[in-house]
Amino acid sequence: MTSDVRISVLDTVPAGGRGFVRDLRVRWALEEAGIPYAVEKLGFMAERSPEYLAEQPFGQVPAYREGDVTLFESGAIVLHIGEKSEALLPRDPRGRGRAISWLFAALNSIEPEIWNFMMVGLLYPDQPWREEARAIRRKQAQWRLRPLADHLGDREWLEGRFTMGDLMLVSVLRALRDSDLLAEFPTLAAYRARGEARPAFQRALAAQLADFEDQPAAA
Amino acid sequence: MTSDVRISVLDTVPAGGRGFVRDLRVRWALEEAGIPYAVEKLGFMAERSPEYLAEQPFGQVPAYREGDVTLFESGAIVLHIGEKSEALLPRDPRGRGRAISWLFAALNSIEPEIWNFMMVGLLYPDQPWREEARAIRRKQAQWRLRPLADHLGDREWLEGRFTMGDLMLVSVLRALRDSDLLAEFPTLAAYRARGEARPAFQRALAAQLADFEDQPAAA
Repeated sequence: MTSDVRISVLDTVPAGGRGFVRDLRVRWALEEAGIPYAVEKLGFMAERSPEYLAEQPFGQVPAYREGDVTLFESGAIVLHIGEKSEALLPRDPRGRGRAISWLFAALNSIEPEIWNFMMVGLLYPDQPWREEARAIRRKQAQWRLRPLADHLGDREWLEGRFTMGDLMLVSVLRALRDSDLLAEFPTLAAYRARGEARPAFQRALAAQLADFEDQPAAA
Repeated sequence: MTSDVRISVLDTVPAGGRGFVRDLRVRWALEEAGIPYAVEKLGFMAERSPEYLAEQPFGQVPAYREGDVTLFESGAIVLHIGEKSEALLPRDPRGRGRAISWLFAALNSIEPEIWNFMMVGLLYPDQPWREEARAIRRKQAQWRLRPLADHLGDREWLEGRFTMGDLMLVSVLRALRDSDLLAEFPTLAAYRARGEARPAFQRALAAQLADFEDQPAAA
């Protein structure tokens, strides 16, 4: 498949990270928009070239290139893809504003608290106070998930129809894996499952997994 | 001053929060773009109306209204203002992409780690392991600030000229207040000072402080 769009991905990650690397968000957006893409594989632990750091100053994936345009940060890339496709971004000013607001909410209001809750074990692996910290972080995450569940109510998607806001929020909720925290919010768990059931998500997930297949899992 | 643009702000906050509430980012962007605005004051601890929650699902400030368009999340609002003004968002596709990438980087890659470092005292006020947690969070923040300083180098702004990326990154770095963490990165400290010295920032800051003047500080 040839395409003007190229995204950077990792050549391998630990087994538990497969299906969760952030290029998945971008692959999903491209699938929803029907835009083909090529991947450039970077070594999981390899030092980044000066050229790559000029493109992605943190040395992470994904970076996005399309002709002369280079983008980093999954949010910026998904927004750019949305500008190309009404499947992700409504064209009326009001719908557009709400979709973009939710995109930022997923990344700045929701994800940090979910991440903090899920990272306790990694950040404090041997600390005897680890569970105490986890309980505090759980409360912080609940404080964000509750108004989110209140807004969603019995809607299928945040604003009625699927947008980039749903794409990013479902992506962010997936980081909770099978945590019992999500089970406290059954409508959010069902919402995540609806997102994951979309054919475009399934194609994106299969593509990320396939790109890892020829490599052993990283330690 | 009459305007089509209205932003929500708080009627008061604790003394230490004055000059740091997130409507400041939006006021700053509006000042850079030369767009007048009106404010709607919300009670600091008051319950939010259903109408406000429909606009801002987390009940926070700022929310932005302009005719039929409503936005929440400071990132979404600054992006919207940038679409109106080249002062914040270059019009060439490459410059536009970089500015928007930095906007998201400030909010999703930098701010969460700065926030985590600064919030240790609030999250764990009486825990004997508070300083141990702070040291770990300091390392996490350094891990983000180092590549940022590497990219900035001796540039005045992230991409040569001032953009919404700088506006948001300076706003995010301000949360470090006078922490010695920022002092470890003198070029970032100087960069923040350059941002704060801009006339548009000074007007925005004065406006936020003035709107608190008739109210006692919250406890």
